[in-house]
Amino acid sequence: MPAKSAIDTLREALKRLPGIGPKSAQRMAFHLLERDRDGATMIVEALNFALASVSHCTHCNNFSETEICTICANTKRDQTLLCVVETPADLESIEQASAFRGVYFVLMGHLAPLDGIGPDQLSVDRLTRTVADRGIREVVLATNLTVEGESTADYIASVLQNSDVVISRLARGVPVGGELEYMDAGTLNQAFDERRQIQR
Amino acid sequence: MPAKSAIDTLREALKRLPGIGPKSAQRMAFHLLERDRDGATMIVEALNFALASVSHCTHCNNFSETEICTICANTKRDQTLLCVVETPADLESIEQASAFRGVYFVLMGHLAPLDGIGPDQLSVDRLTRTVADRGIREVVLATNLTVEGESTADYIASVLQNSDVVISRLARGVPVGGELEYMDAGTLNQAFDERRQIQR
Repeated sequence: MPAKSAIDTLREALKRLPGIGPKSAQRMAFHLLERDRDGATMIVEALNFALASVSHCTHCNNFSETEICTICANTKRDQTLLCVVETPADLESIEQASAFRGVYFVLMGHLAPLDGIGPDQLSVDRLTRTVADRGIREVVLATNLTVEGESTADYIASVLQNSDVVISRLARGVPVGGELEYMDAGTLNQAFDERRQIQR
Repeated sequence: MPAKSAIDTLREALKRLPGIGPKSAQRMAFHLLERDRDGATMIVEALNFALASVSHCTHCNNFSETEICTICANTKRDQTLLCVVETPADLESIEQASAFRGVYFVLMGHLAPLDGIGPDQLSVDRLTRTVADRGIREVVLATNLTVEGESTADYIASVLQNSDVVISRLARGVPVGGELEYMDAGTLNQAFDERRQIQR
């Protein structure tokens, strides 16, 4: 018997996918080999293509196949309004909601000292250079409203406090369509603390 | 903007994995590109290696990198005792439990007419030829104890009924360590129906 069979090697490799343990990896390996060899070939080609062509936009740090991504290159967007997000997925949610017409900076994660992710891994110095060099007027901190996202936002706000840029944070409160009966205490407290006077 | 970006292509490809929807595929794509390009390369190489080298054992239909797999080639095993299982994963469970010292036949699935999986897809004719040609003494039907597994076992038993081979089915009952309080009605009924007299 060889030291390691092709199936064992494949199983090990598939375990590198996030959220995939030994059982799922085995199921995937068997499925691809038995029922979907075309799918396996598609995955190989798509991975090779993406590995070769996808890099980061030199402006916003998002994934891009060009040096500057289509959002940063779009002159119709407000290039002085910068939205800081954790991940490309967050950026896509905001774009799909048409919630923002400025440009972005993608941290590619949040501060997580225990996982070895500090300011350097999040390119915070590149963010501060961007803010200084590109005449940014306002930085909207749109990291997640989780503990990690909040501390990342706090850290970036502290780094930027000496520049004369406006720093803002996404509004916190009851989501649209939310029912107070089912809202958690933290959200209700925020919604009361940050209540807005109604204009009349 | 190109018709389809490398990331979109990768996302589509990863959706071919079983149990992976659009959100998980996106998470995998971003994870591999941002945090684990080595892992992506490993997956590409392992898939290519497996696609090229893994085929089916001509005897038992299990995955194998050789024409006859190590289990079928093992002369210390009882080559006249044949265990029919649905999948390679089932075979591995049985092997890990050292529950069986004969040889196997792997159906690679179960009967599922609605999904287009009939006797031909499960190579049932190859199984009957194997039973006839290789002097099999007993066929143990070890398909799952699910509705599909049971009907697959029933079908194979009906196909083999004219050959003079012994046909058996895995025992059904309360699993070892099982507590009656938590057992389902079907299992309890089986356990009573198939109760065994204690030898004294």
